[in-house]
This record gives sequence, structure tokens and C-alpha cells, in this order.
Amino acid sequence: MVNIDQYLQEKREIINVALLKQLPDQAPTALSEAMRYSLEAGGKRLRPILTLAAAETISDIDDNTVNLACALEYIHTYSLIHDDLPAMDNSSLRRGVPTCHCVYGDAMAILAGDALLTLAFETVAHYGQMEGNAVKAVNIGTQLSEAAGMSGMIGGQVLDLEAEGKDLTVQEIERISELKTGALLRAAVICGGIAAGATESELGKLKVYADNIGTAFQIIDDLLDCEGTTEELGKPTGADLEKAKATYPALLGTAKAREKAIELYDRSIKAVKELNYDTEILEELAKKMIERKS
Amino acid sequence: MVNIDQYLQEKREIINVALLKQLPDQAPTALSEAMRYSLEAGGKRLRPILTLAAAETISDIDDNTVNLACALEYIHTYSLIHDDLPAMDNSSLRRGVPTCHCVYGDAMAILAGDALLTLAFETVAHYGQMEGNAVKAVNIGTQLSEAAGMSGMIGGQVLDLEAEGKDLTVQEIERISELKTGALLRAAVICGGIAAGATESELGKLKVYADNIGTAFQIIDDLLDCEGTTEELGKPTGADLEKAKATYPALLGTAKAREKAIELYDRSIKAVKELNYDTEILEELAKKMIERKS
Repeated sequence: MVNIDQYLQEKREIINVALLKQLPDQAPTALSEAMRYSLEAGGKRLRPILTLAAAETISDIDDNTVNLACALEYIHTYSLIHDDLPAMDNSSLRRGVPTCHCVYGDAMAILAGDALLTLAFETVAHYGQMEGNAVKAVNIGTQLSEAAGMSGMIGGQVLDLEAEGKDLTVQEIERISELKTGALLRAAVICGGIAAGATESELGKLKVYADNIGTAFQIIDDLLDCEGTTEELGKPTGADLEKAKATYPALLGTAKAREKAIELYDRSIKAVKELNYDTEILEELAKKMIERKS
Repeated sequence: MVNIDQYLQEKREIINVALLKQLPDQAPTALSEAMRYSLEAGGKRLRPILTLAAAETISDIDDNTVNLACALEYIHTYSLIHDDLPAMDNSSLRRGVPTCHCVYGDAMAILAGDALLTLAFETVAHYGQMEGNAVKAVNIGTQLSEAAGMSGMIGGQVLDLEAEGKDLTVQEIERISELKTGALLRAAVICGGIAAGATESELGKLKVYADNIGTAFQIIDDLLDCEGTTEELGKPTGADLEKAKATYPALLGTAKAREKAIELYDRSIKAVKELNYDTEILEELAKKMIERKS
């Protein structure tokens, strides 16, 4: 039986070291400071851990896989920096500390986000420079760019902006959630599978796992936003309701929303159990994702 | 003898079609409109044309090379959108038309820039999906991400922001110009060379060509900013002097600055002539870049 808390702690430490190691030294100081600040401002490192967990399920991993997994966190961190900007969500607090633009100003926050997004693809390119990795890197670059781009995360952000103050259907909420959060979580899992040399059929099962647990994760996020306290979450709560953002709990009620999250979790477990490997880590990770309190 | 104006016109038309073709249809409308608006707002398409010219010098080109060349324009256009934002240069006019944020708002302009940057790397990944292109795509992705990122274009933008109102040396100006403009121009040329299968030695000569003509191009840009009229340039002139930005003409005087541009041009021609191919197009392109009036 794997100790999932210990697993998460170990991976988090490995990733935290690798995240900063890949920031080049010769970059201008103010910029790298702003990037480092946002990378170090906490965070669960869920996406790179999903990459490592998926990869480890299928084969052994090495330092190159750890470096690659950082690309997911660079993209996630860039998206938070840009989302927090005054022109976007105008958030001053994130993970319990002032947001990037509050510390370094709007211009530097925009550039730090741009630089992290670019660094993600530089990381993939460098991974591809390793012997025998070129085709994998191209496939990973395809997954990542599609998940992060206009038909993925950025597209979801646009729909979310446009949805403020409007009444949405469950289908519309699902679409926004799938693009905004689900696409990158799925890419995290699939990129791990690709790095480990998974077959098309195995990637398909990883995809079903990631899709279901991704949506469940978003529902839990919405529930925490309704029910949690600022202290637990490290950011103001009730913000979504205040802005009349469409969320699962707002539409279904908290009990039904929680039920839906559990149903999706069950589906993710079923999919991953079909893999012919020891899938305990991926299962425990999924459980952790829906049991979280912050 | 090649007719360079006709060559530029033909390539520009080919690129203009390919640029829009690669915008996915299923993306949210407001976002793709903002992206399309900035892509269609004119522009010389210098970077993708440099990619095609370098590639054509070494071997035949096909549609895949044209699609790849668009990645350079996506990155250039994203950098203009973000640079024009109120938090950055706060420019309301670019290429004779209102800037992206003036038409679509700051939030959408930030997202459109993010989406174009991501699309650039998606374009490279899709290029790598073509038979036999994986290693080339990884090398191109490496060049592009390093040129666009914190040690390249974004790093230059940071130094430029920090330099406002300060006295700089010629060396400092050169460093900013190299990062802000030169890095991506060089990548444009080198990526064309890589796509065409250039050897390391050939890539080295293309690099010297691009470095020298890139700096010359920036000097001419500064001279036009001093001397041009708003009508010719499609953007307000004298803006750099007004903000006390450090430029070559401000430091050397216009005559010396022009002399330096010509010296750099001569060096670029010398380097490219060392290639064992017909280099007339690259030579004429360099000439065009320093003779331009806008």
C-alpha cells in the first residue's frame, strides 16, 4: 500500500528543485525574480505530479522526465499570473501571498507570464534534444500547445469572461470547466504516458481517467470556493458567487454537485484499472484530488 | 536578377493565407476575432519571409515550410499586442490602425497574445508531425523558444523598460536591441535553414548574416522613429525620444548611426556570400531591410 501523502511530498520536493533549476541565470534579474516569486508561491504541483505518476505507472522515470513535467507547472503558473491581472480577475491574493502584479507591477507580471509560457515549450524542446526523444517531444508539444491554447485553456478563459453575469446550462458549465481546467490536467497525464512510451490504447485509458478526475477536481474547487474559508484556501472565497460566475454548486446545489464529483471519480478509477500495470498511485492521486480541503 | 519587390509581394500573399488558415475554427469567436484582427493589421511579414528565403536558398520549399514560417509571425504579433498594452508602452496606434486592446479591451488583448504565442509552438509541433520532421521540429522549437523567451526577446523588453530615462552606453543599447529584435530575426533565418536541412557550418553563416542585418534593421527603425512622419509609419513618431529611450541615433547622431547600419549590412552580405548557393534573395532582402522608408 502506497503512502500517498509521502509520495506527494517527495515528488513536490523533486519538482520544486527542478522548476528553479531550469530558469536561466543570464536573464534580467527583475524578470527572473518575478518568475521565481510566482513559482515559489506554493501550489500543490498537481499537474507535474500527474505527469510523473502517469509515467511511473508505465515505466521507470529519470531526471529528463522530471524536467519535462515542469513544463506543466510553468504553463499553470503563467495562467495564474495572467488571470490575476487587474484587466482580468483583478486578484490581489493567491496561495496566501500577494499576486505577482501586486509585487512586481502589471508590466513585469505580463512579461513573467509570457516568459513562463515560452519556458514551458523550451523545456519540451530540450527534452526532445535527448537521444531518442524527438518524436515523443513533438507529440508532447502537440498535446501541450493544444491543451493550453485557444481551443483549450485560453479558450475556456474567454468563455468564462463572457459568461460573467449570464445564466448558463450544466452543459455550458461543463464546457468551460473542461477547457479551463480539464484540458491541461488531461495533457499532464497524457504527456507522462507519452514520455513513458505508452501505446495508443493505454493513452486512451489515461485520457478517460484524466477527463473524469479533471471535472471532479473542478467541482471540488467550486465547492471549496462556496464553503471554504479564506484562511484554508489562501485566497478570498465566495468570489465566484459574488461575480455571478456559473459554477456546478451554484447550479446544482452543493449536495448534487458533490454526488457528481464522486460519480466522475468512480469513472476515472474504472478507466485506470483497465491498464495492465500497478495503478495504485494514480488511484490514490484521484482520491486525494476529490478529498482535498484546499 | 531577382525582382525583390515582386518576391516580397508573392511571399506576403502566401503567408497571409497560411497565417489565418492555422487559426482553428472551433475557438471562441471573440478571441479568434482579436487574433485575426492583429494578424490582419498589416505588417511586412519580414520574419516569415526571412524563414522562407533562408530555406529556399538551401533547398526547395513546400506548404509545410510556409506553415512553419507562420510561427515567426505569430510570435512577432503576440509581442506587439502585449507591448502595446496600457501596462507596457500604452500605444493606441500600430501599423495605422487602433491597437488590439483599444478594439477588444485589455483582457482579450492579453489572451489573444497568449494564444498567438501558444499557436506558434503548436505550429512547430504540427510541423514535427510530418514524416521525417521530428528532429528538425525539436531544433526549431529550441531556437524559437530561446529567441522568444527570457534570455531573448522578453529579456530585451525587460531591459528596455528598465532603461527608460537612463543614460546607456552603446554596448548596452546593442544588448537591448540584440535581445529585443535581433534574437527573433536570427531565429527566423536559422529556422528556415534547419527546415531546409542546412549543415552546422551553413547555419553558422546564416547566423552571422542574421545577426548583422538584424542590428542594422534596428538602427534603421530608430532612425525612422526620429525622422519619419506618422503618416509614413502608421504609428506616432518621436515616441522613443519623448520617453528618453536609449537608441542608436540618440547616442551616436543620425549620420553615425546610418554609417553603422551600412557597415553591418556589408558584414551580413559578406557572410551570406560564403554559402555555396545562389544567395541573391538573401542579399536583396538585406538591402531592402536597410533601404526601407517605413
